[in-house]
Amino acid sequence: MTAPLRRSIATVCLSGTLDDKLTAAAAAGFDGIELFENDLVVAPWSPSEIRTRCAGLGLSIDLYQPFRDFEAVPADRLRANLARAERKFAVMAELGTSTVLVCSSVSPEAIDDDDLAAEQLSLLADRAAAHGMRIAYEALAWGRHVSTWDRSWRIVERAGHPALGLCLDSFHVLSRDADPAGIAGITPGKVFFLQLADAPKLHMDVLQWSRHHRLFPGQGAFDLPRFVGSVLTTGYDGPLSLEVFNDVFRQSDPARTAVDAMRSLTALEDRLDPVREVPLRRLPAAPALTRHAFTEFTVDGNSGPELREALRGLGFTHTGQHRTKPVELWEQQACRIVLNSAVTRAQAPGAAAISALAISSSDPLSSLRRAAALLAPASPNVREPGETELAAITAPDGTSIFVTRPDDAWRSDFLPTGETPAPGAGLTGVDHLGLAQPFDHFDEAGLFYQSVLGLDHLATEEYAAPFGLTRSRALADPGRTVRLALTVSLLRRGDWAPAVADPQHVAFATTDLVASAEALTRSGAILLPVPDNYYADLAARFGLSDGTVTALHRHGILYDRDEDGGELLHLYTPVLGGRVFFELVERRHGYDRFGEPNAPVRMAAQRHRRLHPATP
Amino acid sequence: MTAPLRRSIATVCLSGTLDDKLTAAAAAGFDGIELFENDLVVAPWSPSEIRTRCAGLGLSIDLYQPFRDFEAVPADRLRANLARAERKFAVMAELGTSTVLVCSSVSPEAIDDDDLAAEQLSLLADRAAAHGMRIAYEALAWGRHVSTWDRSWRIVERAGHPALGLCLDSFHVLSRDADPAGIAGITPGKVFFLQLADAPKLHMDVLQWSRHHRLFPGQGAFDLPRFVGSVLTTGYDGPLSLEVFNDVFRQSDPARTAVDAMRSLTALEDRLDPVREVPLRRLPAAPALTRHAFTEFTVDGNSGPELREALRGLGFTHTGQHRTKPVELWEQQACRIVLNSAVTRAQAPGAAAISALAISSSDPLSSLRRAAALLAPASPNVREPGETELAAITAPDGTSIFVTRPDDAWRSDFLPTGETPAPGAGLTGVDHLGLAQPFDHFDEAGLFYQSVLGLDHLATEEYAAPFGLTRSRALADPGRTVRLALTVSLLRRGDWAPAVADPQHVAFATTDLVASAEALTRSGAILLPVPDNYYADLAARFGLSDGTVTALHRHGILYDRDEDGGELLHLYTPVLGGRVFFELVERRHGYDRFGEPNAPVRMAAQRHRRLHPATP
Repeated sequence: MTAPLRRSIATVCLSGTLDDKLTAAAAAGFDGIELFENDLVVAPWSPSEIRTRCAGLGLSIDLYQPFRDFEAVPADRLRANLARAERKFAVMAELGTSTVLVCSSVSPEAIDDDDLAAEQLSLLADRAAAHGMRIAYEALAWGRHVSTWDRSWRIVERAGHPALGLCLDSFHVLSRDADPAGIAGITPGKVFFLQLADAPKLHMDVLQWSRHHRLFPGQGAFDLPRFVGSVLTTGYDGPLSLEVFNDVFRQSDPARTAVDAMRSLTALEDRLDPVREVPLRRLPAAPALTRHAFTEFTVDGNSGPELREALRGLGFTHTGQHRTKPVELWEQQACRIVLNSAVTRAQAPGAAAISALAISSSDPLSSLRRAAALLAPASPNVREPGETELAAITAPDGTSIFVTRPDDAWRSDFLPTGETPAPGAGLTGVDHLGLAQPFDHFDEAGLFYQSVLGLDHLATEEYAAPFGLTRSRALADPGRTVRLALTVSLLRRGDWAPAVADPQHVAFATTDLVASAEALTRSGAILLPVPDNYYADLAARFGLSDGTVTALHRHGILYDRDEDGGELLHLYTPVLGGRVFFELVERRHGYDRFGEPNAPVRMAAQRHRRLHPATP
Repeated sequence: MTAPLRRSIATVCLSGTLDDKLTAAAAAGFDGIELFENDLVVAPWSPSEIRTRCAGLGLSIDLYQPFRDFEAVPADRLRANLARAERKFAVMAELGTSTVLVCSSVSPEAIDDDDLAAEQLSLLADRAAAHGMRIAYEALAWGRHVSTWDRSWRIVERAGHPALGLCLDSFHVLSRDADPAGIAGITPGKVFFLQLADAPKLHMDVLQWSRHHRLFPGQGAFDLPRFVGSVLTTGYDGPLSLEVFNDVFRQSDPARTAVDAMRSLTALEDRLDPVREVPLRRLPAAPALTRHAFTEFTVDGNSGPELREALRGLGFTHTGQHRTKPVELWEQQACRIVLNSAVTRAQAPGAAAISALAISSSDPLSSLRRAAALLAPASPNVREPGETELAAITAPDGTSIFVTRPDDAWRSDFLPTGETPAPGAGLTGVDHLGLAQPFDHFDEAGLFYQSVLGLDHLATEEYAAPFGLTRSRALADPGRTVRLALTVSLLRRGDWAPAVADPQHVAFATTDLVASAEALTRSGAILLPVPDNYYADLAARFGLSDGTVTALHRHGILYDRDEDGGELLHLYTPVLGGRVFFELVERRHGYDRFGEPNAPVRMAAQRHRRLHPATP
């Protein structure tokens, strides 16, 4: 084999009509599709018109799936099934596709007899072969009798028919915690088709899990590189085909979903071990990240003064003014905040918002080449003559990501204000950014940041917050210099109380939060009051000493502890400028999360503060 | 007992902070609350301040739930648990509440020993009694060893402690398909607390089902009147208390959710059989409904002409003009459509929309009294002098519901146009209305229409549609003269393709759809083209004769059949005026649904038509 692997997507992955889906798949660069029968039924074109349309878009039709409950049935049912098959072969000939998917039966009628299944599948394969077609047999994880890949392989092996092979679907194998290593032992050439889906680990009925919660590779918890590696070892040279049933993707813009899907396959292929002569496409390696260089907020006449006052209270100094634009640089040690009054964001008119994050890379050019290979859109370049070139890409929610050099050359665009540096509060740099994501694009955003910046997916957590269930995805680079917390409401947020429901924030690091908090009290910082009841509960939950609780309580510091004894101390400001806030963070003993259990306390306190600004 | 039953709501049912929740519960008329510990922890008030605040709002605190995994544990764990209990009794004394909920243990440490459980719960009850408090023990459906009400009752009976009784929760009993009849045999006075929740029948892990999908009584599938009847038979005189964990309610406006909750209890109490001396509150009976009197659309300069042309094409005549307003009456037999150019709806500026439905009642005054008792808001009265009084209420999505007299006196507000009646197309009346609902208020809307108009909940179905998963709830009065189909996207709809994703519609009835379709073809009606592929699939699915399929195909008629041989023939118009369409329906042999399997075909065809108005 010398051609690279082809890439396909099942039409069921995408929202819209068949027209919408084909257009989106082609635009994202897919080579082929799996056509779902429902998409054909509601399409205004005949099968041969669909074939023509696909060909015009550069798409092949790689798989069609018109059967259910075919095999291991009583004789009269078999006759009806074979008659039905002939009609479907005619449709397939019109479509110009030659591989039919047959899923293992879920019917109560199905007989638990592998010999019978092999015999009946052979009869079907005979008919298929007469049309130049072939049958790919797949074990559904909830199949009535055949629910594992190895049992489906035993049946195919027993049949020994050249037009009968296997379809392997990563979900059906990995959802059962099956070890995919044995797949490498399948007779070469007998895997006819490979379907890929990731998924979060969920404790639920496997059918529901499969139908509603599948994800693109890299968005869930499955080890797909290992699975695909096993399949490629058998000499499989068909497409890598995505089959993802996901409730959100079903309703989101298919053009964006298709790009997300292609990004997932590109990132997956990059992670495959070399297999025989398969020519794998490789991405530029993700260069080491060295820090959060700066974070830019858009502000206006209302939110600007509020953010400036808050930054001064936190010990920041207004150190620089941009040469040509109404843009200010605020600093404290390695914490850099940029306030930009020049632009407003359509998403949140009038409110402050994080409009850009700048990440320092040891090799910015490679970082950008990798981003381009992963279909990250480039941000429009707004550089003025004489300014440092700041190349940027655009994240799924529209935020710009600048990739900067470790020498902070970008600072030369700012003229010193000459302001006397404030004593500061011991804040040493940015610990993490908290980025609330739009509902339709949360999983897309996770994969985007992970793959483009080379971050690890540390954990995904869910919690009940005052305004609805929230999901949080923790990402960090291997050196833990760049951390991101992506959050989303589990259902799209209602119309109620939106202002404090999904703010964005910057968390600054300190090595001694109590000392920092004392400094802030002296400088008159406005911090978020934490209810007394929280501390009563905290003592009971963690068995902390009275002295410790008193010290935390005095400064409104929240606390969390992980299973390995890692500790987090943190405190918050109220919501500022309509939609942002700051956090101060002290990590102890390797604590690697974001204090998620305290997020509901913070949200309730921020809302109380908003409704009752004068009271504690 | 002579006082009516008190009504409580758990704070977990409502979104927001404790402040938001208490305000909402009091405004909806609740007598008390169950306080969830998380709501106390994040509140800015001490327990005694919470007590004062509740008292000021007329709310008692009926239950507090601070323990997990208390009973049937090793001795050292028991000591720690009792010490913790003392601290919680102190909080309860401050709160002024005397009933503690103890759920059956889910801990792997728990010992399968009813005697030990009884003994340890007795020790806890001793401590509680010393504070004037009592323990209500509840079997969680997923309890480690105690997961049924009868086992929890055996333990309480064995303990024989006056301060130890049962808490019964309808979800934990009915989710296990347990027969509640035996509950009536519990010793009088030993049910200390009653929690109520409904739920849809779902095949999923019971813990997930309970935590995310509970509903208020009447919104799900449980027989709550029977369950509550059994509990009241024991002499229970505590509150009817709602404990509903629901992902949507968690994020919706709590003021509206609390009204929905109170409506559910009011409707439930009305359905209880008389029990001993319990004085049950009764609603005015729901009078018989006689028909859909008329349906009103708001139109403007763009949508008005399009709707008028469509109505003419369907055989309607513009028969009447309102005496004082720019409002037109269009008729065909008992089908009446009102086009109102006088008002615009904030929800859909510029697009046509169903702004009002008028239902004819055999006793309009009783209908309105019942609506008021169920907290249905009255619509503002916009009657001019000399006009017929048309009393109206407002549905959850803002649609007005007029309740009219069977004699159609409202028609006297319209002056005859004198237009020659069109020959018509055999449409005899309104079969049903299709009302897309706002995401946050779908279950509220279902209960609203059911309880206020006295409709039955026929079925709830879910299907994958081109723009996302859709849920449909079918309602009808016992005589099947008024039918409503409420629909909602299972996730809040994305930003993509919203125009055809949730239209509203009126379906007209005919006794011979083929004849009606032929008449429409002659009159030049614009109907929705249905793809050829649909008919190829239809023949295979239902085994219809070639002749039947050809006849359906010729007129673009869709087909469905139920398990009992009932048949539906129906056809659609394209989307008109931005957001509405019409349907023609012929029911055969008692078909009682709405042809839901064909909805995705309709949506895809409507979108195709919108994007390509000129092509078939």
